[in-house]
Amino acid sequence: MANSRSGESVVSRVARLLQCFDADHGELSAAELAERAGLSTSTTHRLASAMAEDGLLFRTGRGRFRIGLALWEAGQRGTRFQAFSQLALPFMEAIHVTLKQNVSLSILDESTAEIVYLERLTHRGAQEDLTKVALRQPALSVSAGLAMLAFSPASVQERILSMPWDPSALQSGVTEGHMRRRLAQARVDGYVHLPGVLVGSLAGLAAPILDAHRQVLGALAIVQTMADVNLKVQVPVLLSATRGLSGMVGNLPRD
Amino acid sequence: MANSRSGESVVSRVARLLQCFDADHGELSAAELAERAGLSTSTTHRLASAMAEDGLLFRTGRGRFRIGLALWEAGQRGTRFQAFSQLALPFMEAIHVTLKQNVSLSILDESTAEIVYLERLTHRGAQEDLTKVALRQPALSVSAGLAMLAFSPASVQERILSMPWDPSALQSGVTEGHMRRRLAQARVDGYVHLPGVLVGSLAGLAAPILDAHRQVLGALAIVQTMADVNLKVQVPVLLSATRGLSGMVGNLPRD
Repeated sequence: MANSRSGESVVSRVARLLQCFDADHGELSAAELAERAGLSTSTTHRLASAMAEDGLLFRTGRGRFRIGLALWEAGQRGTRFQAFSQLALPFMEAIHVTLKQNVSLSILDESTAEIVYLERLTHRGAQEDLTKVALRQPALSVSAGLAMLAFSPASVQERILSMPWDPSALQSGVTEGHMRRRLAQARVDGYVHLPGVLVGSLAGLAAPILDAHRQVLGALAIVQTMADVNLKVQVPVLLSATRGLSGMVGNLPRD
Repeated sequence: MANSRSGESVVSRVARLLQCFDADHGELSAAELAERAGLSTSTTHRLASAMAEDGLLFRTGRGRFRIGLALWEAGQRGTRFQAFSQLALPFMEAIHVTLKQNVSLSILDESTAEIVYLERLTHRGAQEDLTKVALRQPALSVSAGLAMLAFSPASVQERILSMPWDPSALQSGVTEGHMRRRLAQARVDGYVHLPGVLVGSLAGLAAPILDAHRQVLGALAIVQTMADVNLKVQVPVLLSATRGLSGMVGNLPRD
């Protein structure tokens, strides 16, 4: 369909342009878009203008581009994520009120070996949290990723372990053997406690959310300073939340 | 670019397919998509499949389509809406804690004479609230819409007043004269109190958020039962929030 001379479809080029926007690049000129997307300036200009006409992008008074209202609205119709977040929020609030720490809900993108944050609650007075909604992190570098991977089918584990590891996952000489033992232990424990991988002074504590068929849907995690770690209190609170939520996700639309 | 025989570009057809999903239609078959978008089944099938390949849609195990993760993520990069919501949330929380009512943040889509909800806080124990994030309502039928319109340029007011009115805006014999007086009064008062338009027993109370150039950026609104209305308390709380927020939006990216 409507392929360019390079054989790439318009749809793929639209997707590439959308991916140019991220937390640090919310507004881009056509030239910046072209460079980030690897497309010619004229193609980018034509495509971005068409997207702006249909509300997928928004063209500012200075001729720069941002994500448009129609696209934001369509994203809000991602009912599976919305439904999951809505179900999870009361359980996240329970953790948040009880432990007074930042809490996040994430899912695993198996194709890229990354987790994506769907929701977060931040606690004033808790340490700074680098988590943002829609932010991605390497699955092997964060407690939520390990918790989801530990309960994923062996084929998914093997595929992700065989992909190139993010440098953060290799810190302090972690080998594949360490990683496999960490996953096996998480499967036994039902949770992952991961001190200081992405930020040295912080520790993640995460547990998976499973559906009625024991398939992994996501993970709840808290991130705190090492000094605040108190697993005897925090693990039961986290597990009661993830198990309560796991018991409710039967209502989610199935794939 | 890449026009179909009808002259419609691929980008426009992508936008039309995305608009087929709404709060009540989070998952659609190719046939349902084709019907809602007014496209042929074969075109829809080809286009939706391409969109699923690039993560814009998600194809379920039963071959139905939902909004995809990549699109949800791109929507989250709509930094203007995100930045506005982030700025507004503390002010919304202040209203919420003080008045114990549902609070919403909305913007005006001048092209359709609708408001779009960007954020909402719901209060347990408050009456049921029909507001949802990304939901649209006719601007002339809700207090937030009237509050934004009252402070919009005369050209925008005239254009929206001359568009066909939603039946809900015409209830109880409201004429154009009534509507113009309501807008003029709102401009004098600085807020709109609108009892029982969309739901007979509920009343909306809204005030606009203005930037340093007195341009309307959005509105904060509370929705409550008639019995809970107490303007002497609620108006000062609402106005202190909208004025506080108005004073901060100079930090928003300008168009």
